[in-house]
Amino acid sequence: VVSDVHAGDGMQIRTGDDYRSSLRDGRVIYFDGQLVEDVTVHPRFQSAVEVTARGYDQGLDLSGRSSFPATEMELREQVETFTNVQAQIDLLGATTFSALLGIETAADRLADDLPEYAQRINNFVAWSRRHNRRCVPTITDAKGDRSTGPMKQSDPDQYVRVVGSDENGIVIRGAKLHIRGAAILHDLLVLPTKKMSPGEEEWAVACAVPVSTPGVEILNAGWHVPPQRDSYYPYSRNRTIPVGLVVFNDVYVPMERVFLLGEIQHSATLVHAFGTWDRIISASMMAADAHMYVGLAQLLAEANGVDRTWHVRDKITEIVLHATMIRAGVEAAIANAELTSSGYLAPAELYTNAAKHYASINLTRVMTLVQDLAGGSIVNAPMPGDLEGAHVGELVKKYMQGPDGISGEYRTRLMYAARDVVADWFAGHTQVLGLHGAGGPYAQRLVARKNYPVSDAKSVARAALGLSEDTAI
Amino acid sequence: VVSDVHAGDGMQIRTGDDYRSSLRDGRVIYFDGQLVEDVTVHPRFQSAVEVTARGYDQGLDLSGRSSFPATEMELREQVETFTNVQAQIDLLGATTFSALLGIETAADRLADDLPEYAQRINNFVAWSRRHNRRCVPTITDAKGDRSTGPMKQSDPDQYVRVVGSDENGIVIRGAKLHIRGAAILHDLLVLPTKKMSPGEEEWAVACAVPVSTPGVEILNAGWHVPPQRDSYYPYSRNRTIPVGLVVFNDVYVPMERVFLLGEIQHSATLVHAFGTWDRIISASMMAADAHMYVGLAQLLAEANGVDRTWHVRDKITEIVLHATMIRAGVEAAIANAELTSSGYLAPAELYTNAAKHYASINLTRVMTLVQDLAGGSIVNAPMPGDLEGAHVGELVKKYMQGPDGISGEYRTRLMYAARDVVADWFAGHTQVLGLHGAGGPYAQRLVARKNYPVSDAKSVARAALGLSEDTAI
Amino acid sequence: VVSDVHAGDGMQIRTGDDYRSSLRDGRVIYFDGQLVEDVTVHPRFQSAVEVTARGYDQGLDLSGRSSFPATEMELREQVETFTNVQAQIDLLGATTFSALLGIETAADRLADDLPEYAQRINNFVAWSRRHNRRCVPTITDAKGDRSTGPMKQSDPDQYVRVVGSDENGIVIRGAKLHIRGAAILHDLLVLPTKKMSPGEEEWAVACAVPVSTPGVEILNAGWHVPPQRDSYYPYSRNRTIPVGLVVFNDVYVPMERVFLLGEIQHSATLVHAFGTWDRIISASMMAADAHMYVGLAQLLAEANGVDRTWHVRDKITEIVLHATMIRAGVEAAIANAELTSSGYLAPAELYTNAAKHYASINLTRVMTLVQDLAGGSIVNAPMPGDLEGAHVGELVKKYMQGPDGISGEYRTRLMYAARDVVADWFAGHTQVLGLHGAGGPYAQRLVARKNYPVSDAKSVARAALGLSEDTAI
Amino acid sequence: VVSDVHAGDGMQIRTGDDYRSSLRDGRVIYFDGQLVEDVTVHPRFQSAVEVTARGYDQGLDLSGRSSFPATEMELREQVETFTNVQAQIDLLGATTFSALLGIETAADRLADDLPEYAQRINNFVAWSRRHNRRCVPTITDAKGDRSTGPMKQSDPDQYVRVVGSDENGIVIRGAKLHIRGAAILHDLLVLPTKKMSPGEEEWAVACAVPVSTPGVEILNAGWHVPPQRDSYYPYSRNRTIPVGLVVFNDVYVPMERVFLLGEIQHSATLVHAFGTWDRIISASMMAADAHMYVGLAQLLAEANGVDRTWHVRDKITEIVLHATMIRAGVEAAIANAELTSSGYLAPAELYTNAAKHYASINLTRVMTLVQDLAGGSIVNAPMPGDLEGAHVGELVKKYMQGPDGISGEYRTRLMYAARDVVADWFAGHTQVLGLHGAGGPYAQRLVARKNYPVSDAKSVARAALGLSEDTAI
Repeated sequence: VVSDVHAGDGMQIRTGDDYRSSLRDGRVIYFDGQLVEDVTVHPRFQSAVEVTARGYDQGLDLSGRSSFPATEMELREQVETFTNVQAQIDLLGATTFSALLGIETAADRLADDLPEYAQRINNFVAWSRRHNRRCVPTITDAKGDRSTGPMKQSDPDQYVRVVGSDENGIVIRGAKLHIRGAAILHDLLVLPTKKMSPGEEEWAVACAVPVSTPGVEILNAGWHVPPQRDSYYPYSRNRTIPVGLVVFNDVYVPMERVFLLGEIQHSATLVHAFGTWDRIISASMMAADAHMYVGLAQLLAEANGVDRTWHVRDKITEIVLHATMIRAGVEAAIANAELTSSGYLAPAELYTNAAKHYASINLTRVMTLVQDLAGGSIVNAPMPGDLEGAHVGELVKKYMQGPDGISGEYRTRLMYAARDVVADWFAGHTQVLGLHGAGGPYAQRLVARKNYPVSDAKSVARAALGLSEDTAI
Repeated sequence: VVSDVHAGDGMQIRTGDDYRSSLRDGRVIYFDGQLVEDVTVHPRFQSAVEVTARGYDQGLDLSGRSSFPATEMELREQVETFTNVQAQIDLLGATTFSALLGIETAADRLADDLPEYAQRINNFVAWSRRHNRRCVPTITDAKGDRSTGPMKQSDPDQYVRVVGSDENGIVIRGAKLHIRGAAILHDLLVLPTKKMSPGEEEWAVACAVPVSTPGVEILNAGWHVPPQRDSYYPYSRNRTIPVGLVVFNDVYVPMERVFLLGEIQHSATLVHAFGTWDRIISASMMAADAHMYVGLAQLLAEANGVDRTWHVRDKITEIVLHATMIRAGVEAAIANAELTSSGYLAPAELYTNAAKHYASINLTRVMTLVQDLAGGSIVNAPMPGDLEGAHVGELVKKYMQGPDGISGEYRTRLMYAARDVVADWFAGHTQVLGLHGAGGPYAQRLVARKNYPVSDAKSVARAALGLSEDTAI
Repeated sequence: VVSDVHAGDGMQIRTGDDYRSSLRDGRVIYFDGQLVEDVTVHPRFQSAVEVTARGYDQGLDLSGRSSFPATEMELREQVETFTNVQAQIDLLGATTFSALLGIETAADRLADDLPEYAQRINNFVAWSRRHNRRCVPTITDAKGDRSTGPMKQSDPDQYVRVVGSDENGIVIRGAKLHIRGAAILHDLLVLPTKKMSPGEEEWAVACAVPVSTPGVEILNAGWHVPPQRDSYYPYSRNRTIPVGLVVFNDVYVPMERVFLLGEIQHSATLVHAFGTWDRIISASMMAADAHMYVGLAQLLAEANGVDRTWHVRDKITEIVLHATMIRAGVEAAIANAELTSSGYLAPAELYTNAAKHYASINLTRVMTLVQDLAGGSIVNAPMPGDLEGAHVGELVKKYMQGPDGISGEYRTRLMYAARDVVADWFAGHTQVLGLHGAGGPYAQRLVARKNYPVSDAKSVARAALGLSEDTAI
Repeated sequence: VVSDVHAGDGMQIRTGDDYRSSLRDGRVIYFDGQLVEDVTVHPRFQSAVEVTARGYDQGLDLSGRSSFPATEMELREQVETFTNVQAQIDLLGATTFSALLGIETAADRLADDLPEYAQRINNFVAWSRRHNRRCVPTITDAKGDRSTGPMKQSDPDQYVRVVGSDENGIVIRGAKLHIRGAAILHDLLVLPTKKMSPGEEEWAVACAVPVSTPGVEILNAGWHVPPQRDSYYPYSRNRTIPVGLVVFNDVYVPMERVFLLGEIQHSATLVHAFGTWDRIISASMMAADAHMYVGLAQLLAEANGVDRTWHVRDKITEIVLHATMIRAGVEAAIANAELTSSGYLAPAELYTNAAKHYASINLTRVMTLVQDLAGGSIVNAPMPGDLEGAHVGELVKKYMQGPDGISGEYRTRLMYAARDVVADWFAGHTQVLGLHGAGGPYAQRLVARKNYPVSDAKSVARAALGLSEDTAI
């Protein structure tokens, strides 16, 4: 029997309207210094809410899914469901998908040593799926002085920590940064950002917290479309997901939702469990993006009348190769998926991390190629109002036209799209996400290295090179 | 005696107020579909006008300068005057500086074959300097179908051309793209964008046209700061120079200001003459930018408390080496400046082009390093309004603080600065300028190759490799 | 019933001794200007013959295999059989494997239009398999002046051509370059190097020619180990496969072995058919090499006592990622293998070419990393004779030792191995093969581009960017 | 008056014959385990001795030069004298030039604290110049376990150290690695390889030791041309300078030649003093090499008949830009040379190190471009003996010919040259030297960073970004 500490939160969320209602739960959300009455109608949040609501309306129901993929086909299908370019609009779906698989993987790894925590996690997951809620892992602490850990900070709250407790629950304080969608989803999975050392027990805390819990306050930043600028931002206008700085101001968490409490030896288990799922989703999304870049590049070349020029073709080919190699990494991760001891299939860590790493370190190069193919009009095309003006509109149509069949208006709007994707705020945001999201390339290098059969490579090398195993001779 | 066809335009512009007045000359300027009454007070243009006005007030007087640098010291001094980061705010000064040197270089090259045009150019330059006007070369045509030239376009106006003439002047039609500052400066130097072929005589036209001439209409685009967002854009708020699509709707140009009229064999002479000056200024600006990136990167590392971490230091060192190599190219161009037949000193083309090329192809990589060093807060730092809120402001200060001595507010503002420089619209704009400005890397490759002593290299190689000069043996 | 024009050649080759005997067939082989009496005992060829003989003795029997892989498992097994580092020693096995699959693929593609040629090819393949012979495609012509085709050469023999014929056969003349193992295998598959144009019919010729045919003369080059230097070349000493310039001095080929004779429209069909098999084998070999580089790098780091240094670990990780991405490409090519109309499974062209391309363009970078990790002793370690000297040997052992457990002799020999693999003749040879083998990166770019779903990418981009399908609006 | 402890060594070396005689001084030289009777006639050393002898005969007399360049012109002239491709043949001249400037720079830096050592150094330099001797710094110790310093080695001789002394001199033991030309020059400048720490006084020793001193034993390695292979190695045959592992078997050094003896605080002063001179010479040599690569690439493109193909031209342009940027770094280092307190001019450290770093990290890429331009014949061209054979020679000439005017023999020899320079042992050696010579890229990064005006960059950034100097606000 599942005990449910948040029974009151427990309405099933099935439709977009259910979802909108679920966000009017007293949550404390700020934007640009102002308290937001209702995120569903606030200009900063409305578009993101609408996109997510549409996801619900289209039946993106996580409750019906088995927790884990059991076959290569299921794994592939799940990865693809959440990562094509269109699906990326409803990022909260993908986020929740990998978050739940991540926390279940953690339960699996904690089961032997800390079975009660594992059970609590499984209860939470069942409850979350049953009610079709959206959640997100919250990992990165404020950190203050990064050259040292939590104990030596002048302010101990720089890492989320336990500041009180009673027999039924704990009180936590601190903040988590870079939380995508925090203001418009339901639950926050709080995890330690690093392995804690002896003496750092109070910072070794993990738990699940509904956004509406008293003491949770969310400041919002991140790319958004200025009012009345939708047509200038044809891609990002649907991707205005807010990024939250989530503050936990002495938030009470019932024990049923506490998943770690001082067990420093397991403080990194949880965050590591999220890695593979987070990265396969990221890599697959970046493969989908790269596919779209190929299309965008080709459209630009055609609109400029240079699609048969050798260096243009060669640049598009470079994007093609980029897209293909990311996809190859994802394909290899799925084809070599490993059956865990619990019987589910997880993408191969080596290929998953190599694919994400490859995608990240080459992302900016590919964006630069698109800028190159677009030409200067990518930033200098006349404004949307110009297109609409009577006299001015004629000038734009006359002087922005391409080869036969490419109107000035089409070409101008294509330039807006290109700028939006590779040369404006959203592009910068995407680049930063490539560098720092899912742990960043450095983390992926470490994991790839760790999963590579280096010993076998040494044996192969020794045999091929005629080198003795006994290096002392 | 200088004949002066635009005597009426001829007030000397000495102060910022003179400059503001000079812009109220009936010019036809559009922004986002709307006709702009007065650029000096319009929100899109005001900041750029103010910056330029300040340049006038600070005495940036081109009239007192000798046309050309005669010594290495003069050359270095002139290049540096216009290209440090602070000076870049008044971009119209730098633009005019290189434009006048460019057109004078063209006059020099035309003098033997087309002495009358050369004389007209020199008259224009003298007049422009005397009145301390600002001007810009306008080169890139609309082009329509780039796979073919002006004759095969469905619309012959895709390249600026002569559509009429009388004994005193000509009438031109067409448009020029990507013209920085067109809406807020005085004269447009119209040049053919490419070498014209037989049959393309009507497109082989060059001339100088005041912005206020009837028929000149300018549509504006380019990066600009949204109202009330100054503190979120601490760098680019001073760099909101408008970029114009300049339309010539049957504009009459008196013969005194016509510098080419059908002489296709010289149609590329003018644009080439601008190249070296344009690129040495560009390269030197990019060296100054790179120096600022070093500083920004170091400030970020310190604010994050990671300035002693090896990989952070190594990344900053990579920016250091980038800045140093661009500067080395500029230094070599000046140290090897060539004395032209006319007695002035021009930066060495080989080094100038190599430096600009190097700067351009590595720009995005360096911006990515700064993004990397900043961390995710570069795009996710709370908004300016948050800093000002009473309760929310405290949260920002608490959770955005760095090591001792680094306040949360300082660190938040530093993140705004970093985003503005490397991860937002202005950054995209800058990247595109690096790719397409001053001819783009491809043009610089061609010029570098052309100026390299390949024959000498072959001789050296033959001698060193013991290869006969007679390849038939 | 298979007609067999070379019945006399038809002994079954089962053992190493059979193979050695088969090479004493009157073949005309030159090395460094001298006619080679017997390749099986000549110092330049003996090692390569021995390695191939060992392959026969170990039962590498192609005759028992079905022509084509029918399942993913079979495909994977075949690719791996021929491409691990140890298997690469018997390169002629891998070469023959991909050559036969390639020519069978060609037969498949010719079957509709030119069924008789297809039948002849299948006869040849059956005969070759039955007798367990080794063969190689010969593609690259001498070419002379590469700026033009065969017709405008001052010497028409610069491309292999038909210079005579009778009812039973044809006479060919010309030369084929870069033929690995030509001197020590059995059959040469002559293919046109490019698509021939009208007028070039005499050069549109394909056929199979035994090495021993009168008129075939082979000049040999390529890396080889100097006498008495085996211990200085512990890797390449087993890889001294000769590379032949194969001259066809009016060689008679019976019609049964002619696979194309003037049908210019099919002149490129054959060479294209070889591409995928050649490249999947190449890519898989390069993946195996990269795996060995990881091992070598780790052994070097350990022998130098720096395997825990961060930048050393990071460099090894870069090799790990390189190896993983090549392997991912091969895995994706196999996982996405396409069932042809004839019912066999061919690796996906897109992934195959992307993998080979990736491996090639990054090869030199990886070799440089190994050089870096080795340190200066990779080229400066004392010579083998030093190791053996009484007094001098002691000095080497004393001053070349590494951390505890790493003797000076082991470390010196490890340096020989590293130099052999990444900093000597064989390394240069390998780099050149990476650049020019299997068509070179340029060819792989073309094929990858051709196989990429660009139209789908355009549709995805249009939908995501809100762009009309009708570009004229 | 200069005291001269080695008066007996003191013959003036003016001619090649003087030089040959000077090498018959009882020196103990090994090659491949054998003691070398006379280096001037031994096949491994003879070519290098002849090249150096020619340098003497051509009057490369260091004695007549003032110690230090005083003007930019002198500095440039000296750098160029020793670094063009032809001059690189007599590497011992360049080595001695930078070694003497380096040790004099060290004397300059030691003068205040350790004036007696400074005086001894100056005496040595005067003596060396007077007798026109060749010398080399010896820096790299054997090191054993690189993860720790000299004290924790199982064998304390892994770093050169003082093992005895009397009032007139000291006894040293250990070995120095990677010493170019050790076997065929006169004096070894022994320097600590790193900054020594307290307790490591016995390893803080510097001195000058003639090669002929009892106890000095030199093992030789490094690239060399196999007998009878001169025509196959047309470039490296003149560059067979031996690289020595120099053993100091309890070598006695008179106090007059001891330059450091336990003063650990100055243990890094000497090696640092060599850096700038070593690197400006290295960078200038690499610029000269790059110039030759341009020529070689162009010759290859012409011989292959593809010099007008766009991608070929573009690849050559990339080499052009590479050569130009290295040269720009050298030019900037000279144009910004700094006048030291002692009144001589030293190349600017920032530019010197940046130039060397740039050259090193791009070297392999450039070599790969040359391999690419050459085509497969770079490693597969027929052998020299083939060229000479009557029948075979005709085949080579026929099938290796290029476009009109390019004979088969010329093209074959050009391929030998290309292989020799970029795809054989010498190429590997050159790559390793680029990576590890003159401290390697890592050292150059450190020095560049140290010499960059980071504080100024921070101030510029703060001003441009509107950031307060007071980071606590």
